[in-house]
Amino acid sequence: MSLSSQSNRDDLLKAQKNLISEYDKLKACNLSLDMSRGKPAAAQLDLSNEILTLPIDNYINCEGNDVRNYGILTGIKECRQLFSQLLDIKEDNIIIGGNSSLNLIYDAIARYYIFGKLGQTPWCKLEKVKFLCPVPGYDRHFAICEEFGFEMINIPMNNNGPDMDMVEKLAKEDDSIKGIICVPLYSNPGGICYSDEVVERLAKMETAARDFTIIWDNAYGVHHVYKEIKLANIFDIAEKYGNDDRILYFFSTSKITFPGSGVALIASGDKAIEEIKKRFGVMTIGYNKINQLRTYEFFKTPQGMMLHMKKLGAMLKEKFDVVLNKLEEEFGSSDLLTWAKPYGGYFIAVDTLPNCAKETVRLAKECGLILTNAGCAYPYGKDPKDSNIRIAPSYPTVEELEKAMDIFCVCVKLAAVNELLKKN
Amino acid sequence: MSLSSQSNRDDLLKAQKNLISEYDKLKACNLSLDMSRGKPAAAQLDLSNEILTLPIDNYINCEGNDVRNYGILTGIKECRQLFSQLLDIKEDNIIIGGNSSLNLIYDAIARYYIFGKLGQTPWCKLEKVKFLCPVPGYDRHFAICEEFGFEMINIPMNNNGPDMDMVEKLAKEDDSIKGIICVPLYSNPGGICYSDEVVERLAKMETAARDFTIIWDNAYGVHHVYKEIKLANIFDIAEKYGNDDRILYFFSTSKITFPGSGVALIASGDKAIEEIKKRFGVMTIGYNKINQLRTYEFFKTPQGMMLHMKKLGAMLKEKFDVVLNKLEEEFGSSDLLTWAKPYGGYFIAVDTLPNCAKETVRLAKECGLILTNAGCAYPYGKDPKDSNIRIAPSYPTVEELEKAMDIFCVCVKLAAVNELLKKN
Repeated sequence: MSLSSQSNRDDLLKAQKNLISEYDKLKACNLSLDMSRGKPAAAQLDLSNEILTLPIDNYINCEGNDVRNYGILTGIKECRQLFSQLLDIKEDNIIIGGNSSLNLIYDAIARYYIFGKLGQTPWCKLEKVKFLCPVPGYDRHFAICEEFGFEMINIPMNNNGPDMDMVEKLAKEDDSIKGIICVPLYSNPGGICYSDEVVERLAKMETAARDFTIIWDNAYGVHHVYKEIKLANIFDIAEKYGNDDRILYFFSTSKITFPGSGVALIASGDKAIEEIKKRFGVMTIGYNKINQLRTYEFFKTPQGMMLHMKKLGAMLKEKFDVVLNKLEEEFGSSDLLTWAKPYGGYFIAVDTLPNCAKETVRLAKECGLILTNAGCAYPYGKDPKDSNIRIAPSYPTVEELEKAMDIFCVCVKLAAVNELLKKN
Repeated sequence: MSLSSQSNRDDLLKAQKNLISEYDKLKACNLSLDMSRGKPAAAQLDLSNEILTLPIDNYINCEGNDVRNYGILTGIKECRQLFSQLLDIKEDNIIIGGNSSLNLIYDAIARYYIFGKLGQTPWCKLEKVKFLCPVPGYDRHFAICEEFGFEMINIPMNNNGPDMDMVEKLAKEDDSIKGIICVPLYSNPGGICYSDEVVERLAKMETAARDFTIIWDNAYGVHHVYKEIKLANIFDIAEKYGNDDRILYFFSTSKITFPGSGVALIASGDKAIEEIKKRFGVMTIGYNKINQLRTYEFFKTPQGMMLHMKKLGAMLKEKFDVVLNKLEEEFGSSDLLTWAKPYGGYFIAVDTLPNCAKETVRLAKECGLILTNAGCAYPYGKDPKDSNIRIAPSYPTVEELEKAMDIFCVCVKLAAVNELLKKN
């Protein structure tokens, strides 16, 4: 029997009975599983252990500075060079920051809030600040906007990026819209990759706000799993239109080496990065340069990093396969759950029938499986359809993942059947 | 001939001639020396190299968490415990932050500026915010206040801490005064240690602003050199008066292990630290916990850290001796330069005759010796008397330091004589 939203009442009642029995059996196993956060598995971390004892011989960098001591605010040269080559961004436009790109994003927004951007009015002096938020998106981005009291405007995500007609229209009309938050490659959670056209339109579009800022959080820029999607270089395009200061580009090695113990970077156009460097000079004396040297020594070249990412990608693929095969098996010919296969990144986003996501997550929790909170991928935690669920398959073992997916699929169906029976 | 401000014109002219000749000889040596910043010498850093490969065996902390992965926002337990014991602060009231206490101070001020403190009006919404600044003080503290547009009020520093009569009067009268910035032990640059009475008065005083905040930057809390001065526990006292949320306590291992690659902490009263933890949860996913575990593994106990500090202190003492002996030799029976011998910390502050500090620094620079800019220890870089100079003896070798002090003393005298001759 293939269940769908079109099934009749009798079939639904029969299915409900079977699903409750399956669910109770799974519940009786007293499992404790977690697919809530995009945490790398220990085996992924082990691939980087060597980095922790590098450099072997001395702590003098390529410019003759002792990285154990004060100095070098914007990051050691070899590390900036490595990322410059990897991401095709000019070396002088990159600052290697601390351990967290999220922290760099927060700080960047805080600076514009407090001091303004390039001579424009500080956002704290404005009545209203709005941000465009492609949805579903990353919960922690939205949490930052919420913390600062920004009004978040949902922008629907197409399979090639945000709805650009809507973005262009809003950005052009409303000067209280100060920016848009993007994860342009293998987006969290949908795995969406921005097309060249979308990148171009973002880089060139007219904006009412002169300090309009694109938060370009390229968190999964080298996190290919099934396919190597190439992201257009937004700086190349923005430069043509004189808009390079509009871009704040972020990247980190949190999901390359160690979460929270890697290095993060911020890059921007000439004027914007100069302003940031000046303010960094007041904010801190500098970041952990030993870690920067280690990161460089471990990878040496972009090729070195891509080789490492191939190994990580193979590990993730094994996990993604479990999830995607199971989804295909259970819902391939049903409309109770829909999803797009991601080509990389860390997540798989699925859509239940409307009004079923929260209930699915609740059922799973009672059955010993923690999922990311339903709605978390939307501003204010409010998924208008209550249908999106983010699956984070990296942390559990393959065996755990298989059990987790059993629970997940039963919960999706049970929630769907219960919902359908309400109206049927 | 012992020069002094009372010397007659003939003696001054004779001295000037000799000093110019000495100065020219030193200048001809084409030296390149630097006593400008409190950078540890390489030999000091070497004492901590072992920390860079710890822990030897695994990365699981005392609570069973893999420190290489996400999680544990407020710092790993063993590290918080270590600092709790060292500084006698409750473990739950400590957050281990990133690599820089200066950055933690900046962030703390930014948070109150943006969001306000414990329900009070955000400082960005106020017409005027003022801070009390004991002088001479740390240039980077003043740079933060200046960046935020705070009006800084100079508070004269006595030999037991800031002039508390003035502090109490101002704090009580003016609710736009939101705080005071203190380096309570071996202050930068004067080496002043706050007496028990001063600490008590700060902790208990009445303040017009309910969100009055004491930035308690205990940067040199274990940096004893000649004597082990004990600082009163400000939290113990503040608790008695219900003022513990007034204190933001900062500490770091930048001058214990590696500058910029150590760990820093912030501590406060129950309510204030809870608020900070909540905001940290939006600002970052967490800090480098591998570094935290390393720091713990290296020291294990407060005793372990104090043993390490004894070795560092002995290295510093050698440098301090060179400076202080030379000063005594050249100015012990003259009023052209005055200073107080510090018992610890990183600096020696001296006072030239009025209007002679800038000129002394300029003369030294032309002679190949970089000193910290004159005036830097005052808000806006303005030393009202133009007499204070900060000597940072840690970085040069003893041999370099001896040469540097030769130059310094000649420059002090030459600037003084030139100044005296203007009026004489």
